Amino acid sequence: MNTESGVVSLGAFEFECGESIPELEMAYEAYGEFEGESGGESNVVLVCHALTGSAHVAGEGDSNTAGQARAWWDDIVGPGKAIDTTEYYVVCANVPGSCYGSTGPASENPETGEPYGTEFPPVTVGDWTRAQRALLDELGVGRLRAVVGGSVGGMNALEWATRFPDDADLVVPIAAAARLDAQVLGLDAIARRAITSDPAWNGGDYYDGPGPERGLAVARQIGHVTYLSKDSMARKFGRRSAGRTARPAESPFPSDPTTGYFPYREVESYLDYNAGRFTDRFDANSFLYLSRAMDNYDLAAGYDSDADALAAFDGEAMLMSFTGDWHFTVEQSEHLANAFERAGAPAVHHVVESDHGHDAFLVEPGKVGPPLRDFLAAGVAGSAVTDTGEDDSDGRVGRLGPRHRP
Amino acid sequence: MNTESGVVSLGAFEFECGESIPELEMAYEAYGEFEGESGGESNVVLVCHALTGSAHVAGEGDSNTAGQARAWWDDIVGPGKAIDTTEYYVVCANVPGSCYGSTGPASENPETGEPYGTEFPPVTVGDWTRAQRALLDELGVGRLRAVVGGSVGGMNALEWATRFPDDADLVVPIAAAARLDAQVLGLDAIARRAITSDPAWNGGDYYDGPGPERGLAVARQIGHVTYLSKDSMARKFGRRSAGRTARPAESPFPSDPTTGYFPYREVESYLDYNAGRFTDRFDANSFLYLSRAMDNYDLAAGYDSDADALAAFDGEAMLMSFTGDWHFTVEQSEHLANAFERAGAPAVHHVVESDHGHDAFLVEPGKVGPPLRDFLAAGVAGSAVTDTGEDDSDGRVGRLGPRHRP
Repeated sequence: MNTESGVVSLGAFEFECGESIPELEMAYEAYGEFEGESGGESNVVLVCHALTGSAHVAGEGDSNTAGQARAWWDDIVGPGKAIDTTEYYVVCANVPGSCYGSTGPASENPETGEPYGTEFPPVTVGDWTRAQRALLDELGVGRLRAVVGGSVGGMNALEWATRFPDDADLVVPIAAAARLDAQVLGLDAIARRAITSDPAWNGGDYYDGPGPERGLAVARQIGHVTYLSKDSMARKFGRRSAGRTARPAESPFPSDPTTGYFPYREVESYLDYNAGRFTDRFDANSFLYLSRAMDNYDLAAGYDSDADALAAFDGEAMLMSFTGDWHFTVEQSEHLANAFERAGAPAVHHVVESDHGHDAFLVEPGKVGPPLRDFLAAGVAGSAVTDTGEDDSDGRVGRLGPRHRP
Repeated sequence: MNTESGVVSLGAFEFECGESIPELEMAYEAYGEFEGESGGESNVVLVCHALTGSAHVAGEGDSNTAGQARAWWDDIVGPGKAIDTTEYYVVCANVPGSCYGSTGPASENPETGEPYGTEFPPVTVGDWTRAQRALLDELGVGRLRAVVGGSVGGMNALEWATRFPDDADLVVPIAAAARLDAQVLGLDAIARRAITSDPAWNGGDYYDGPGPERGLAVARQIGHVTYLSKDSMARKFGRRSAGRTARPAESPFPSDPTTGYFPYREVESYLDYNAGRFTDRFDANSFLYLSRAMDNYDLAAGYDSDADALAAFDGEAMLMSFTGDWHFTVEQSEHLANAFERAGAPAVHHVVESDHGHDAFLVEPGKVGPPLRDFLAAGVAGSAVTDTGEDDSDGRVGRLGPRHRP
């Protein structure tokens, strides 16, 4: 697979909030060959990463993603895979505010020579989208075949339909929503409080020390539970003891007083292990900034309705959702499909039966890949046929009804 | 209403873990008149409180419950109410390990003259039940008409059926379960980590200072979200701004960097306000101990099955659950009803339609009261009739099928 990775400077960048930074760098990776534009046809697919993701979608490791052992969508993007890099030129950029090579709170502020910390401007999904547009311009890419993203990356894809409605043939928001609901807003707010309550956060000024590792670990654990489903947690962990009373070395937490008497359960072991890995790889201030961007995203902001926000969109949309996902629900994707429809954009909504919760978009490539491949190839015109056939074959029937035929 | 409140010393107490304390004090309240025992009939109802509850079930305030503005089940317990104190003698005791008058981590260890802190023995729901039995003995109460409890108080009621199977005519576990599932275990574990990660927790030794207020606030907020439902949060808060950008004075948390740009939402305001009130009234170590007791509770522990654990129970049971409750689910109560049935104990399961989540057992007295009143009066023999009539009248039909008729 032909792979590029690099960091492109976009120069000065003004954020939606009105604040600017003198230089925005965007780390990106790209796979496959850009075929240029001929007759309005594009072979470019922009992939948008989730909250704590990076540009490293596929292939081998890369220096911008230290600590991420594995590309996050390697089962979906590659030669012969659903987003086939022998056919498409696939680009993914780390969003502004993150910590995987693009400019964010941990980056040096050239005006002070110190990390930005909380001097970094508040960032929005709109800022991500404008920065991606500017990066693609630098790469010589005009039109896109598709913008595809999962979770808040799906909100990022929606923002493309709103902000650059003529630029993509297709948008594919996966496990996404027009806006978060109050329950998830509450949990995200609690996660941020866990970070800012850690004295090591120190008002965001911690880059000369270990940082708020425990607060960030608690924040991650809260998030992690929202990515799983009740059923998947029951199946994976139940109430089983992890077979040891002591916390493992990788646990970032002190023991509570009754640890010696009560079992250390598998669910705790899993959450502790993953939180420990996460704090090694992610910046706490970036977590605060990106989580705020996600919470603030509202498709209808500045418009009369979700459909109104999509009214100018000139392409087609596929929504994909997962039955066990309580972070971004099936109902929220169905609502989006209806909004595209009302806006006059052909749309399909593919509901995947899965008890993997929100994580399904990452861990169920066998269910995500086939409808995605088909939609990229033929849009709403082709999707129903291939998909129904494929899903029937394993006994789990996804729904992919044409909601609108032009 | 005739009200007693007091603290009874039970002398030395050995916990299930094998550790002992030299003196266990139990704070209790009682309402109504104890009629003694005649012909095996009892008019005593033991009420078991939830995780952070107190003995102050009904009536006016009391010195043991500083900070609790209001009795927690005053709509249910009182003269002419569902648990009618003109008929029943209603007793509630603060559980060992708590901080509302019964001995717990914040109490003075007579051997050192200092608070127990984490020297307090790990406590279990079984310990609570044995301590309640000993307290009732001190009060001259032998048999009980009923043991009624909500949430972990419902687990406490189940433990009565297992440990003292001849002592109560009726048990009423409300919004309870035979054991917590992995999702809730995970969230509880995260809440404990928020406390122990707060440097002010200091290994449990903080009684000469302010204590881990922020960690406890985060823990409470996590719990709080599990007490509400997605629907009730959407209805109560939506994505609305609380109409001010600054955090209120009662918020125990520092602001995150983008607070000035993004709205302070109603859901945050609600969680912050309630967390601030909670940290004023509850001890962080007690939270750790009681949360562990709840997580550890398993009806079948030491038995072959849940039904086996209930095999000796000589009375009848009513389970009550709430459709919007994802902490203790309808399915878990249905499972319990089946377990009672298999154990040969007459049981009914009353499912209340409510989107209030787990909190419904506290905030829906109009739905909880009628079936409870009827079950206390007549057991499974009378419950179906009254209940169906009452529930139909407001258009929300609860299900109360006789599952077993002797």
